[in-house]
Amino acid sequence: MNELIELIDKKLDEYLPIMYPENIFKAMKYTLMLPGKRLRPVMCIETTRMLGGDINKVIPSACAIEMLHVQSLIHDDLPCMDNDDFRRGKPSNHKVFGEANAVLAGDALLTYAPQIIIEKSQNLLTQTQIIKILHEFMNFAGAYGLIAGQVVDIESEAGRLVKSKEETLKFIHLNKTAVLFRLAVRIGTIAAEASDDVFNELDSFAEKFGLAFQIYDDIMDEISSFEELGKSIGKDKAAGKLTYVSLYGMDNAKNKFNELINECYGIIEPYKSEVYSAILGKLSKRIISDGE
Amino acid sequence: MNELIELIDKKLDEYLPIMYPENIFKAMKYTLMLPGKRLRPVMCIETTRMLGGDINKVIPSACAIEMLHVQSLIHDDLPCMDNDDFRRGKPSNHKVFGEANAVLAGDALLTYAPQIIIEKSQNLLTQTQIIKILHEFMNFAGAYGLIAGQVVDIESEAGRLVKSKEETLKFIHLNKTAVLFRLAVRIGTIAAEASDDVFNELDSFAEKFGLAFQIYDDIMDEISSFEELGKSIGKDKAAGKLTYVSLYGMDNAKNKFNELINECYGIIEPYKSEVYSAILGKLSKRIISDGE
Repeated sequence: MNELIELIDKKLDEYLPIMYPENIFKAMKYTLMLPGKRLRPVMCIETTRMLGGDINKVIPSACAIEMLHVQSLIHDDLPCMDNDDFRRGKPSNHKVFGEANAVLAGDALLTYAPQIIIEKSQNLLTQTQIIKILHEFMNFAGAYGLIAGQVVDIESEAGRLVKSKEETLKFIHLNKTAVLFRLAVRIGTIAAEASDDVFNELDSFAEKFGLAFQIYDDIMDEISSFEELGKSIGKDKAAGKLTYVSLYGMDNAKNKFNELINECYGIIEPYKSEVYSAILGKLSKRIISDGE
Repeated sequence: MNELIELIDKKLDEYLPIMYPENIFKAMKYTLMLPGKRLRPVMCIETTRMLGGDINKVIPSACAIEMLHVQSLIHDDLPCMDNDDFRRGKPSNHKVFGEANAVLAGDALLTYAPQIIIEKSQNLLTQTQIIKILHEFMNFAGAYGLIAGQVVDIESEAGRLVKSKEETLKFIHLNKTAVLFRLAVRIGTIAAEASDDVFNELDSFAEKFGLAFQIYDDIMDEISSFEELGKSIGKDKAAGKLTYVSLYGMDNAKNKFNELINECYGIIEPYKSEVYSAILGKLSKRIISDGE
């Protein structure tokens, strides 16, 4: 797992040299290179590996997913959005480079990610695979995915709900959080040329994992500390934000989390993946130990 | 020309249905559908046509270029950037939908544009052409193109110059303005499967056209009116902004403009394009008549 993270860090650094105008590349690189769990690229690469594929074929796409993730963090942290001053324990992008550069660094990552997929996959993947991966990327990154999630999140914070609270929360969790895990796993499966059945099964795994991950996040926002998370906490509660905990209560949140994690174990077990076992184990440990 | 604009408007409208969450699609569509000259998609389609290609093959990509252009306008107008309240004669995106939605509408257009290229070109272009077009798109849209131009523009406004004023101005004009005309013409040429020689010749045309267009814009910012341009004017001068006019003076700006337009005529003449003649004619008319 740590080796995978190191590999991803190395590749991200390598893929993004500092060019003129330096400020924009430095801004892109600043948030991208903050130490992180690299969960999405790790899952992308591990999916390819456990399906018998060549991980070298998927590394560029895996790194592109991390770039997309970081893009969404940079823009979400902006004063006009969640207005967060910290990210991964450090001042957020606009705090260091200013708002204009933070907007542009996000934009630049959003185009650089697919550029990397195209440039670094040319001799590794077929043209059909590259186009399929790019299509997945655009579809999940945009107004049918990640951005839809963020928009509904903002609307719900402002008290403007079109659907019920339950439906709204599910839409946000699916689109704001699960979407990037699904993208990672789907791309990993495409690179490994797995069957449609496997594709759908692992896609369902990724969705459940994403929902569990967001419930984990909602729980942590109440019980964790700044030191542990590296970002402002208790903000959701203070803002009266719609979260799994605020809507269903802490006990139900923990139960739902455990149910989802068990379903994830059930789907992934036959693949005998140490990396996935470690990811699921780590996530569930904190919740269970807190419940003790 | 007007028929082409109508076709583009119709396709843009068709490509972007309003889905849930409506707010984001409405925000994307608001600036996209404001009446405009559609110069970049017109040039893209006309390039394919005059080279003997099938224009149906390039319409999705041409519309994607307009989406990219509109994305850059929405983000450029943000309070943290150029802080412009008007665009194409109407309140700018963030004035209508708020800053958060304007940032997200730009992000969404930036991923929706390539998504349209992929989804609507599948049976029209070869996979090689699609990947080539997507690569051009990402490369010109990002930190090696459009965004580099915007970053250096912001830096220069803040008085932070790394290179000489002359070099900086040229970099901004090439990357902030010429880049989208080059992208349009390059994609039009790829769709028509023209030779490398033609590709390079028309690329040089597009670059010269882009520089002429920006000098035109700089001149207009001094001599035109809000009614004529549909956006705030005199702002560049008031902000002490680096423009062709501020750096070289009005006479030199007009001379350079005429020189570039003549070079453009020279390159494009053999292709006997009525559309390009009209575009060049319209652009030069206003400058010359003012000079009289």
